[in-house]
Amino acid sequence: MIIDCHGHYTTAPRALDDWRNAQVAALKDPARGPKASDLKISDDELRESIAANQLKLMKQRGSDLTIFSPRASFMAHHIGDFNTSSTWAAICNELCHRVAKLFPENFIGAAMLPQSPGVDPRTCIPELERCVREYRFVGINLNPDPSGGHWKEPPLSDRHWYPIYEKMVEYDIPAMIHVSTSCNACFHTTGAHYINADTTAFMQLLQGDLFKAFPTLRFVIPHGGGAAPYHWGRYRGLAQELKKPLLTEHLLNNVFFDTCVYHQPGIDLLTKVLPLGNILFASEMIGAVRGIDPETGHHYDDTRRYIEALRLSPLQAGQIYEGNARRVYPRLTAALQQRRN
Amino acid sequence: MIIDCHGHYTTAPRALDDWRNAQVAALKDPARGPKASDLKISDDELRESIAANQLKLMKQRGSDLTIFSPRASFMAHHIGDFNTSSTWAAICNELCHRVAKLFPENFIGAAMLPQSPGVDPRTCIPELERCVREYRFVGINLNPDPSGGHWKEPPLSDRHWYPIYEKMVEYDIPAMIHVSTSCNACFHTTGAHYINADTTAFMQLLQGDLFKAFPTLRFVIPHGGGAAPYHWGRYRGLAQELKKPLLTEHLLNNVFFDTCVYHQPGIDLLTKVLPLGNILFASEMIGAVRGIDPETGHHYDDTRRYIEALRLSPLQAGQIYEGNARRVYPRLTAALQQRRN
Repeated sequence: MIIDCHGHYTTAPRALDDWRNAQVAALKDPARGPKASDLKISDDELRESIAANQLKLMKQRGSDLTIFSPRASFMAHHIGDFNTSSTWAAICNELCHRVAKLFPENFIGAAMLPQSPGVDPRTCIPELERCVREYRFVGINLNPDPSGGHWKEPPLSDRHWYPIYEKMVEYDIPAMIHVSTSCNACFHTTGAHYINADTTAFMQLLQGDLFKAFPTLRFVIPHGGGAAPYHWGRYRGLAQELKKPLLTEHLLNNVFFDTCVYHQPGIDLLTKVLPLGNILFASEMIGAVRGIDPETGHHYDDTRRYIEALRLSPLQAGQIYEGNARRVYPRLTAALQQRRN
Repeated sequence: MIIDCHGHYTTAPRALDDWRNAQVAALKDPARGPKASDLKISDDELRESIAANQLKLMKQRGSDLTIFSPRASFMAHHIGDFNTSSTWAAICNELCHRVAKLFPENFIGAAMLPQSPGVDPRTCIPELERCVREYRFVGINLNPDPSGGHWKEPPLSDRHWYPIYEKMVEYDIPAMIHVSTSCNACFHTTGAHYINADTTAFMQLLQGDLFKAFPTLRFVIPHGGGAAPYHWGRYRGLAQELKKPLLTEHLLNNVFFDTCVYHQPGIDLLTKVLPLGNILFASEMIGAVRGIDPETGHHYDDTRRYIEALRLSPLQAGQIYEGNARRVYPRLTAALQQRRN
């Protein structure tokens, strides 16, 4: 089985955009905005939006199951206040849940949280609980910068975030660290903000001692860990300067990296530098980079080709494709068994 | 000849710190602060600070000449106003000039600019001119984020920066894109802010069309280009999405990368992904990562070892070690000839 741990619902029917636009247009007077119940998307529309897109490509490329969360760039936690994000997160999570119900063999949900800049993360707990208990979601996406490129929240090692971590530990679910749209003109969303956030999160975890407080807490850093694997020597050296243990001990029991790196030399480096047990297969398809690489004739985000080219043993490939995901997302196995019963 | 294009004066005598501390302590009433002339550092003190540190390591590691600029993390452009930065930059640049005069075979200057958040970069021109004309400096360091981690200036492709670019073109000098200390708790200075800035700058240049306006403008992106080479497929794909030419044409006549990547797999990737003509040898020694790598028994920042391990042809190695630096910093050759005459 090939599990893609990083997919977003980037192809939702147009009605979702329209609803969000109406919500944003009414920010100053939310009473005049749309209600959640105003959004009408039929099962057929959902089926079509998936079958013609993600599912088609999954079949072509040979992946079986995608851990599926709301479109990252549309989370836009910087818009409005907690109530804005709360309604929006509930709608987006429910759509992912419906997709997972329609395609139980192929999709399983991960939640976006109703974060809002400057708001206590504790406010996200009810939505998180709902997604795990009612929807059987297996993970969450945690945005370390709900301001959208202004970076005003404390680092991930700060107690500010502990309420989320306590719930993650209780439910035994991991968080993918994933920012949303940049509203800072300096940072292109998918070309700078995403990658910077990955690097930033990794360094925040390196500086802190979070996993002493939460030994079972698990994070997935997407986009191949930002710059971290490329600069692995720098990070090993900085850990030394900061009198931290070796990174293997300090971070690698708790921090995992996906394979959303869109060329062979990048995947070669990732799998050379990091233990294979810390690498989870992913493509972020259909996402930021949708084109065909003229150098290979294949889609940039067809990351399975890069993994195949590594010529790993079946056991090693199985770790990256399936075993690590089942270990990092233990609710996945439970949910799949339940679905089949 | 082996040229290290990225060295900072991180070992300046203590008197420099004391002067800066006094300046910062008097920010509210600069008249009570120190004058530039209050700083007394003898030639012997300068000699000692270099001979026992950078020069010793250069000799051990076999590099000949370092392009030498003020300590990057101490530029701290976010402190005070333009006058604060102006006096501070003048002092720091003069010290680098004195080092280059004391060790003319081994050091040549690159300038820090007296940038200040929200201040027109045009104000930096007099210091830039002084450093090129009087000190024969061969390049500058340009800080894309003088706020120190809050990213409030426009992207590098914006007209905001054109006055600097016009001077760079006039003098035929490149800029290394280099931020300074982060005063944003989210960003560790050398583990996140530096690397993010490199990635951000690269993406800003990718999004823009700056080199249409300035075809001879040249930038060096330090720290191996941040995350850019590791995600080269992503950037090639994003350029496609943005309808830009191939990166080779769009950026690689004007954008260069140094070799401050502190492990072999990183250097392997850098030299595999980028044309060798775009890679300049550098170590940023003595800098952020000063320790010995337990995996190799050698200093992390002894980057020459990684280049040597590539087993390049003499011609290829010569490009990285010398030829590219002479091409990107044409005033270097002129200055060296003049010194020898």
